[in-house]
Amino acid sequence: MSLEVDQHLYDVIIMGGGVSGLRAATLLAAQSKSVLVLESRDRVGGRINSVEFDGYRWDIGGQWVGPAQKRLLSLIQELGQSTFPQQQQGKKVVEINGVFGNYTGTIPPLGMVGLIESQVALYRLERMAQTIDPQCPWDHKNAEAWDNISAQAWVDKNIWTELARKMIHIAVTSVFSTDPKEISFLYLLHVFRASGGVMRTLEVPNGAQQDRILGSAHQLSLTMAERLGGDTVVRLNHKVSDIDTTDPSKVTVTCSNGKRFFAKRLVSSIPPILLTRINFEPQLPMARQHLNQRMFMGMVIKFIIFYDTCFWRTLGFAGEILSDRHSVSICFDASFVDGSRPSIVGFFEGGHARVWSDKTQEERKAEVIDLLFKSFNDERAKHPINYLEKDWMKESESLGGYAAICPPGLLTSVGKTIREPIGRIHFAGTETATDCAGYIEGAIQSAERVTAELLPLL
Amino acid sequence: MSLEVDQHLYDVIIMGGGVSGLRAATLLAAQSKSVLVLESRDRVGGRINSVEFDGYRWDIGGQWVGPAQKRLLSLIQELGQSTFPQQQQGKKVVEINGVFGNYTGTIPPLGMVGLIESQVALYRLERMAQTIDPQCPWDHKNAEAWDNISAQAWVDKNIWTELARKMIHIAVTSVFSTDPKEISFLYLLHVFRASGGVMRTLEVPNGAQQDRILGSAHQLSLTMAERLGGDTVVRLNHKVSDIDTTDPSKVTVTCSNGKRFFAKRLVSSIPPILLTRINFEPQLPMARQHLNQRMFMGMVIKFIIFYDTCFWRTLGFAGEILSDRHSVSICFDASFVDGSRPSIVGFFEGGHARVWSDKTQEERKAEVIDLLFKSFNDERAKHPINYLEKDWMKESESLGGYAAICPPGLLTSVGKTIREPIGRIHFAGTETATDCAGYIEGAIQSAERVTAELLPLL
Repeated sequence: MSLEVDQHLYDVIIMGGGVSGLRAATLLAAQSKSVLVLESRDRVGGRINSVEFDGYRWDIGGQWVGPAQKRLLSLIQELGQSTFPQQQQGKKVVEINGVFGNYTGTIPPLGMVGLIESQVALYRLERMAQTIDPQCPWDHKNAEAWDNISAQAWVDKNIWTELARKMIHIAVTSVFSTDPKEISFLYLLHVFRASGGVMRTLEVPNGAQQDRILGSAHQLSLTMAERLGGDTVVRLNHKVSDIDTTDPSKVTVTCSNGKRFFAKRLVSSIPPILLTRINFEPQLPMARQHLNQRMFMGMVIKFIIFYDTCFWRTLGFAGEILSDRHSVSICFDASFVDGSRPSIVGFFEGGHARVWSDKTQEERKAEVIDLLFKSFNDERAKHPINYLEKDWMKESESLGGYAAICPPGLLTSVGKTIREPIGRIHFAGTETATDCAGYIEGAIQSAERVTAELLPLL
Repeated sequence: MSLEVDQHLYDVIIMGGGVSGLRAATLLAAQSKSVLVLESRDRVGGRINSVEFDGYRWDIGGQWVGPAQKRLLSLIQELGQSTFPQQQQGKKVVEINGVFGNYTGTIPPLGMVGLIESQVALYRLERMAQTIDPQCPWDHKNAEAWDNISAQAWVDKNIWTELARKMIHIAVTSVFSTDPKEISFLYLLHVFRASGGVMRTLEVPNGAQQDRILGSAHQLSLTMAERLGGDTVVRLNHKVSDIDTTDPSKVTVTCSNGKRFFAKRLVSSIPPILLTRINFEPQLPMARQHLNQRMFMGMVIKFIIFYDTCFWRTLGFAGEILSDRHSVSICFDASFVDGSRPSIVGFFEGGHARVWSDKTQEERKAEVIDLLFKSFNDERAKHPINYLEKDWMKESESLGGYAAICPPGLLTSVGKTIREPIGRIHFAGTETATDCAGYIEGAIQSAERVTAELLPLL
């Protein structure tokens, strides 16, 4: 392959065409900076993507928006889209130990003791989380102690009823897509804090799952890329292989397709682990290398299953299901408000996702149908008209979702390198956010922060 | 690059020319199996390597042998080498909180309470470790609880005196080259158990550091490779890039230099994380992929500092130093029994290694000299005649040392995949050992186990 050199000295090259990279590009371009976005995939959107079916673009990646996510709400408006509420009227279903129960509101029908304990535990988590400064969780007075344990270790020590343990397991797994035993307790509290609080993160009404984005979340990325000027600024299929900062005056970026570009500053907006594939000259500091290697990606397979009718609505169900026995921890109604496009969206998460990733799509579909059949107790659940799914662990440019996670011990040792610029290299991406880290909102916030960081330097 | 295909169907291709790979090759060749060893570096030895100075081959990787390491002792004999005792006569030095103390024997001069507590803690660890079956630590009745916490969390809960905490920190760091907060408590106990016990691991007399190998440990690898027939069987600079098992009758292995080979069976003897760089067709099962990504390499920089004379011996010192204040956690005398080749060997380990990896060799040398000067209280410490070092984190075909480590939560979720064959692919390497995992002895044991596993299949 011959080298093809673009001699232009860009103000900024952004590595990664997800929401964070595209938003930073938009903000920089608005300040008349010349920007080049290099995206390794053949599409923009990163961990947001869509599949078309029945005349609609279905999000098979990130999709929800909460009322506190001001930046995302404003971006939706700016790009000419709108939101509609996540369906939640009706009975919700919870399966614990193979026993199915129904409830309305946000309180599942657990035994009273387990219920009280779950609430108390969430309250305690909330109180601890609120004491953390999301800018520097490593400076908290309990940082070392909380980072030395996993979230599961905290549960083992503090939660006594089996029901409360299971509810908290489901809650943690659905927010982080990893099992509580694998995540640092400090990191868990930090992300809860940086997402506006525990309840804000978990709830549908007022929470991060309150609304959906009409026309898909993925459309936001497509519109941002289009407004930037399409392929003239966003280059698809450009996978960065080498980043050279030995010349003190600029950054040299080489792609695996032989294209080479120069810029005053470089922004990485990709998940940390993907940085391990790039040759840096000189090498990144060892602390940053370890952060890159050891913040691992959550594990998730998302599915949408389609039916002829919203039969669960006619049976009085909301379509929301929590389960500890099936391998699908959580489901929501994915149909439209008026009941058109009848569908249920759900997730295999954490350890479940890892195990089910090796199975066939038919097997996963059967697991989903079994859960829905038992939840709604209706034969119609067995006859879907379509089943879409996305295994984010198998997407080689993501290696998982929703976001990267710190195992115990990592945040207090190398965590603070996550958004520290290294010479001319700057870091964005939802993992670097101090507000809603792991969410679309966090991706946007990180873009605003990195833009503010860059502007005085250009 | 054009593809160059070796049409021979080898019985076994071994990926990795460290002790494990070379020993497996030797054992298989002795059974008249045709074997090809593919080594990515320009040398054999893996995490054992040497530098020549003053007419001697100095080990800058693994080097010690203990009396319980029967396989290694027998290999040393088989290859015509011998051992000599690690020097340990004289006063040992311990620095805690900047205060230096001397002691003889194995009992450092801590306060009496801290001392008793350290001993009790080690005894408790030993007792817990002995209940683990090294073949399947994940089946232990406490496996989940112990895997949910880090070693540090156990210390935080069980150790009360600051001195005992510091001693245990030094002990864990020197065995695992990672900080206790980053390692699963179950994994710690498992490795202690699989290495013959806690004291066996930590002690010099009767322990894993009792003896040294005359002519270097690295020479063992060189001799093994030579006896195999040099480059006809061991191919250096052959970095495997692709492993294809879609043809049910054989494994196809392609190297980044364009060479392609076929075999009935493949053995990987490289650290798990290096497997993430190889394209597997079909992909490895997701559990194994996660093991590969998330077992991280310990962090270590080894140094040897040389002097004109063994001045510390004449002052009555053994040359053994423990420190919690300096960034060098542990030192030993590296001279010969007769005092020739005066030298001290030591390590930056765990978090210290990570921080000091970014500094210059001059800075590290100054840190070493400062520790030696204060330990021996003698000006001669300031005038070394040479300083050799090896930062194993920067060796791209190792990414660290001594061995790979499980963070909390990993061993009980995907740990058992570590030596489970996947079709025609088998796994060796010290990480897969059930005896002395992480040691040279473990590398040999893994070679014996994988050979026994392969022979009935060929």
